[in-house]
Amino acid sequence: MATVNMTIHTLTIVGVGLIGGSIGLAARQRGLVRRILGVGRQRDSLERARRLGVVDDWSLDLVTAVGQADVAVFCTPVDQIAAQVLAAAPACAAGTLLTDAGSTKASIVGGVEGRLPPGVAFVGSHPLAGSEKRGPEHADAQLFQGRLTVVTPTPQTDGAAVERVAAFWAGLGSRVCVMSPEDHDRALALTSHLPHLLASAMAGILPPELHDLTASGFRDTTRIAAGDPGLWTAIFAHNRAAVLDALRLFSARLTEFQAALEAGDCAALDHFLTQAKKVRDALGS
Amino acid sequence: MATVNMTIHTLTIVGVGLIGGSIGLAARQRGLVRRILGVGRQRDSLERARRLGVVDDWSLDLVTAVGQADVAVFCTPVDQIAAQVLAAAPACAAGTLLTDAGSTKASIVGGVEGRLPPGVAFVGSHPLAGSEKRGPEHADAQLFQGRLTVVTPTPQTDGAAVERVAAFWAGLGSRVCVMSPEDHDRALALTSHLPHLLASAMAGILPPELHDLTASGFRDTTRIAAGDPGLWTAIFAHNRAAVLDALRLFSARLTEFQAALEAGDCAALDHFLTQAKKVRDALGS
Repeated sequence: MATVNMTIHTLTIVGVGLIGGSIGLAARQRGLVRRILGVGRQRDSLERARRLGVVDDWSLDLVTAVGQADVAVFCTPVDQIAAQVLAAAPACAAGTLLTDAGSTKASIVGGVEGRLPPGVAFVGSHPLAGSEKRGPEHADAQLFQGRLTVVTPTPQTDGAAVERVAAFWAGLGSRVCVMSPEDHDRALALTSHLPHLLASAMAGILPPELHDLTASGFRDTTRIAAGDPGLWTAIFAHNRAAVLDALRLFSARLTEFQAALEAGDCAALDHFLTQAKKVRDALGS
Repeated sequence: MATVNMTIHTLTIVGVGLIGGSIGLAARQRGLVRRILGVGRQRDSLERARRLGVVDDWSLDLVTAVGQADVAVFCTPVDQIAAQVLAAAPACAAGTLLTDAGSTKASIVGGVEGRLPPGVAFVGSHPLAGSEKRGPEHADAQLFQGRLTVVTPTPQTDGAAVERVAAFWAGLGSRVCVMSPEDHDRALALTSHLPHLLASAMAGILPPELHDLTASGFRDTTRIAAGDPGLWTAIFAHNRAAVLDALRLFSARLTEFQAALEAGDCAALDHFLTQAKKVRDALGS
């Protein structure tokens, strides 16, 4: 992949929030692009992004702006990406590379596959970076540094396009791995979507009179519940089957915990906690 | 409480780890004490604490060391505190104040009440501060600054002793609130013990091949699962009924989430996530 020339004339970023904005800052700082064009629906937010140096220019016109790109990255909610790609692709020149930063992959990749003009490639991506914060003011040129981006081709995806996408994310500082959209979605159901669901369920049952009795443990455990409900509703809806599988796995473990607690079985409790600590220690801070 | 004179001649800290060590550093930095005596079972750790300036001197002899104190704080695991208090109290002079920093209160307070020599008072305390780290090297003089400490008297507790304990924690920089041991345990089951159980269950089901596919959301949500299994087994065992109640409340919410997900009911999902976000936003970072 080192041989792929990643100098991009025009990079179009659709959805200039935390992720899209960080792509813009990282691409500029690393000299990957000559021009960055932002697309969105809110003039205020786009103009703020331009003043922050995240984009050079912006447009409310998706089709025209993507049509000018040699690489376009869709950083919009997962339930909008496929439709936007299909809307914009007919305006693209042959050789245009389209990718995304969506948290689910199978339904996006499946929604686009086989429906693009000749010479226009779409390769699904998901950088495992972000936060519960939103907006271009939280963009960070180092957001992808050392983090993993999953690139999700199918057997139909053009190999050269996969290499270009991998080189693009590597150019932003990311490590890159390749897996199928379905494997990605099963994995992320467990590593991201289920934790979000648990954090939200936990935060959701806290009565107001106990707010003052929370400490860092509660705050860490529920931090991601501050994420945008609309974005996450779409993620859950897009990855329903895999999230339900992950939830069943979790519920079974919770039932084991509960049985040990009901029985006052300290050896079993210690076993569960010790095994969990080993996993968590292996992940690092 | 401002009128309580908190100059302590000898403060004995039983269990000089993260919490005990932070009490030592804070008490010294704030000029609350003339001499700090540490008690533990491991020479190495106690000597490390002395070199770190956390204690002035240390002892392996619980009874003698607590007998020299005008205030002693027990920062040992919750299943050891009551027995240690009962063992040491007969060596104490009248007027000695004993307290603790345990994460559960009813069984400790109940185990001590009515069994102390005349003039020796025990008042349960729980500073809502700490971390998954251990040992005096993680002690922090600012650990209690602005955090809440719950003081848990019963109708039998001497009022002057409650004021002295409250003044002690306030002197370390803490905010102080007073509630019954049972109310404390019910509240902490929801705000601390259940989150720990969830974090451990979540970490526990992560297969090794997915470690690399975790990001900050997973790491935040499971951070406390790195806590010491022995300490937490004791906490769960001590607060079994309240943790089981909290777990039932959580499971009911999880079942509602699951039903909405199975039905593809995006309005219901959005409602749950929005309500959780409101709670989490209200807590701050």
